[in-house]
Amino acid sequence: MAIVFQFIIILFSLFFLMYFTFTCAHVIPKLPSSAVSPELQQRSISAQNGLYRTKFFTQILDHFNYNPQSYQTFQQRYLINDTYWGGAKKKAPIFVYMGNEGDIQWFAQNTGFMFEIAPYFNAILVFIEHRYYGKSIPFGGNDEVANKTSSTLGYMSSTQALADYATLIIDLKKNLSATDSPVVVFGGSYGGMLAAWFRMKYPHVAIGALASSAPILQFLDLVSPYTFTNIVTQDYKSESENCYKVIKGSWKEIDDTANTPGGIEQLQKSFRLCNNNISAGDLKNWLQTALMYTAMTDYPTPSNFVTPLPAYPVKKMCEAIDSKSSGNETFTKLYAAANIFYNYSGSVICFDISNDSGGWDWQSCTEMIMPLGGNNEESIFPAHKWELEETLSYCKQTYHIDPRPHWITTEFGGHDIGRVLKRYGSNIIFFNGLRDPWSGGGVLKNISKTLIAIVAKEGAHHVDLRFSTKEDPEWLKDVRKQEVKIITSWISQYYQDLLQG
Amino acid sequence: MAIVFQFIIILFSLFFLMYFTFTCAHVIPKLPSSAVSPELQQRSISAQNGLYRTKFFTQILDHFNYNPQSYQTFQQRYLINDTYWGGAKKKAPIFVYMGNEGDIQWFAQNTGFMFEIAPYFNAILVFIEHRYYGKSIPFGGNDEVANKTSSTLGYMSSTQALADYATLIIDLKKNLSATDSPVVVFGGSYGGMLAAWFRMKYPHVAIGALASSAPILQFLDLVSPYTFTNIVTQDYKSESENCYKVIKGSWKEIDDTANTPGGIEQLQKSFRLCNNNISAGDLKNWLQTALMYTAMTDYPTPSNFVTPLPAYPVKKMCEAIDSKSSGNETFTKLYAAANIFYNYSGSVICFDISNDSGGWDWQSCTEMIMPLGGNNEESIFPAHKWELEETLSYCKQTYHIDPRPHWITTEFGGHDIGRVLKRYGSNIIFFNGLRDPWSGGGVLKNISKTLIAIVAKEGAHHVDLRFSTKEDPEWLKDVRKQEVKIITSWISQYYQDLLQG
Repeated sequence: MAIVFQFIIILFSLFFLMYFTFTCAHVIPKLPSSAVSPELQQRSISAQNGLYRTKFFTQILDHFNYNPQSYQTFQQRYLINDTYWGGAKKKAPIFVYMGNEGDIQWFAQNTGFMFEIAPYFNAILVFIEHRYYGKSIPFGGNDEVANKTSSTLGYMSSTQALADYATLIIDLKKNLSATDSPVVVFGGSYGGMLAAWFRMKYPHVAIGALASSAPILQFLDLVSPYTFTNIVTQDYKSESENCYKVIKGSWKEIDDTANTPGGIEQLQKSFRLCNNNISAGDLKNWLQTALMYTAMTDYPTPSNFVTPLPAYPVKKMCEAIDSKSSGNETFTKLYAAANIFYNYSGSVICFDISNDSGGWDWQSCTEMIMPLGGNNEESIFPAHKWELEETLSYCKQTYHIDPRPHWITTEFGGHDIGRVLKRYGSNIIFFNGLRDPWSGGGVLKNISKTLIAIVAKEGAHHVDLRFSTKEDPEWLKDVRKQEVKIITSWISQYYQDLLQG
Repeated sequence: MAIVFQFIIILFSLFFLMYFTFTCAHVIPKLPSSAVSPELQQRSISAQNGLYRTKFFTQILDHFNYNPQSYQTFQQRYLINDTYWGGAKKKAPIFVYMGNEGDIQWFAQNTGFMFEIAPYFNAILVFIEHRYYGKSIPFGGNDEVANKTSSTLGYMSSTQALADYATLIIDLKKNLSATDSPVVVFGGSYGGMLAAWFRMKYPHVAIGALASSAPILQFLDLVSPYTFTNIVTQDYKSESENCYKVIKGSWKEIDDTANTPGGIEQLQKSFRLCNNNISAGDLKNWLQTALMYTAMTDYPTPSNFVTPLPAYPVKKMCEAIDSKSSGNETFTKLYAAANIFYNYSGSVICFDISNDSGGWDWQSCTEMIMPLGGNNEESIFPAHKWELEETLSYCKQTYHIDPRPHWITTEFGGHDIGRVLKRYGSNIIFFNGLRDPWSGGGVLKNISKTLIAIVAKEGAHHVDLRFSTKEDPEWLKDVRKQEVKIITSWISQYYQDLLQG
């Protein structure tokens, strides 16, 4: 039970690409600047030094309530780049990134697509940070107070975040005298869900949304809880059957070793862990995290998103496992694979496998109840049947709170999404890469002429939003071309509508 | 200043057809059963005795927050009639009335249209009461606690109400095993605004909305604040120029009289008021209320909505003013007119002109900031320029609260509504009668093939939703026929979509 429970925790605090890996290895900073490719590194630095200016907006704490507490305000951070803007007079477009669960600078620096298309569209870029993340902390910016109890955390919700974005955008347009400029919203992962939902709920603010790798269907009774782990399994299996088998077999070996005298010390040594105050469950979580995030970020070029990684990191992990130089022992092979995710820069002395899942843990205990499990026989992970009851019990224990598992589908829909949106909705691109485990909860089929699903067989988690590189494969270039073409059509239609009054 | 301020209060607590007139005359009960026409009376009684069953749903206090208080629940009342329902197996439709600012029974009994079309559609009828009204009171159903301070009142908002409706409907469909039954929502006045907004925000719950007399554009910077009073002015002017002049001239006469020794007593006697502890402002408010509500409910047949009234009550008021039997004195004429609104049943001994505007006053101090004024020279009312500052100051004084005047347009839009909804939206009927002062804030032009404006030149406030009578004019019959035809088309399209999967 303890092991199963651990697995639950890792799975539902996993979402999506959060802080939590950053604390796993001592030397990985929160915003890694030691990029793999010099080109990326260059961009990352220039992003920090001049790609945007930082601003703050005074945001209300609760948009949907009028009690005295709701009137409290906080400073919401946003980043702005007007280098290429055509200006208010020309009604030039405003491109807004809907911040997700983390520091907005991190997302801005990993959303090169927006910087690259800005000159073509003469667009101004705005990246808005999600409340309770980064520097956008309510209660005087005091992280400790804001995250203390459910009384202060209660204001962190997707609906409040969307209302923040609407309020900020409307105010910004007014300040720029640009009320007639079309707004297009962008987002990846949870940010992609927010972008799609924003177009659904605030069509009067945004004329369209690019929702990249947005698993808006990964909710109760919508898709199988095993979709996510199935895709991870397929990712490794597709590289090599041996790789899959070694990983799949390792969980029992770890348990067996842990149960022998001196076993924990042996595991500590094999995986170069900083301390020996660990359990088999801790180690398995740490390894599973590496496997999942590597599958998510299985990009065709070197990247530096959650951590520096080589191109095609799943392949690289399997090569490490399959390689004769890794010896015949499972732990040596697994260590070599983990090293790719946790120590690609090569500077780690030892690994700290403690887990800090931050703000997302709260969100996954209130509304983001996303069933994830790996109960099928073939799964690369230890078998685990997803049970709502376990989530409820974990959240009750951790936050003294009852999750609201049906709220997201009540508020945003999801059931028969095609039938609903076909008759009510337009101008959303749903991008998904099929190697991305989250794609199982994404919209994978066109809904109408203006609700388009772009699916890339070889793609990973919002790969389309990344800075382009010379090594990008043709399919990725094509995806971005399609996206630019579709966004162009939204904007021209908007200008036509404007002319017609 | 005091007079101007009074006028403001009456104007923004006027919305729409609330309790507040009920307390004006001692003998008018909250739900008048002494209907004018025997047919209406019969229906009203049968409504109370068997037209619906009363049920309660356990609703959460705050949908958008996760602090401990938000988890409190309250009992939300709804009325249900399944006499004509085709059943879940046949996927027969569910028609839902979105309750407005008052007792839901009152609205059900004044929405005969739904009862009359139910057999044709084999529809089940559901009328949901708005939180904080009728029997749907949070905080243990204790009206006094719920309305005590902004800490308890804070949960009363349109967004919470819409989320209530979504939650209740989804649960009800599940309980009826009718998840595939199409839902169409109906509403008049504020309920019509909620119906339109519900289709906009919850298209996954409702396939269409009939929004009758829904002034969704009566907000800041959208329409002139003088629209409302202009239409009232035209209503009386169109009956007789003399009637208009007498009313317009009366305000000064009331002030002048009040300023003479014994003047208040004279006013008290002239208007048969119960006590003499009144001001000229009180009297003018009382008269203006009668004029406004009569204009709103200027129905072509006898009615019993806010109060029993004859057919074409504006004409009747002007006839009373113009009639020689009313003598030549302004007050006698005005008293005769007021008597039609406040005492059509003839049983009032004296009039109590105290004012209790109930829950709407709170809503009009938080989000429903609807500019209404009568500054133009022609206005039938005393000149008054609408100023946001005065609203802010009144609300600060009354509730120690800052209104959020831009919230409604941030959340629901309104600016360039045609351009926005043309590209994102479908299946809403906006009905407006041009004699209804609220029509100035309504959608009066077709937006697309599925966003239809039905405009009746002779129509008053959601006249289409009322029970039909033998005396109904042809134009009204036509309006209802059109509405039935359009709703039929939504439902057939839904079944077709369902078949196609």
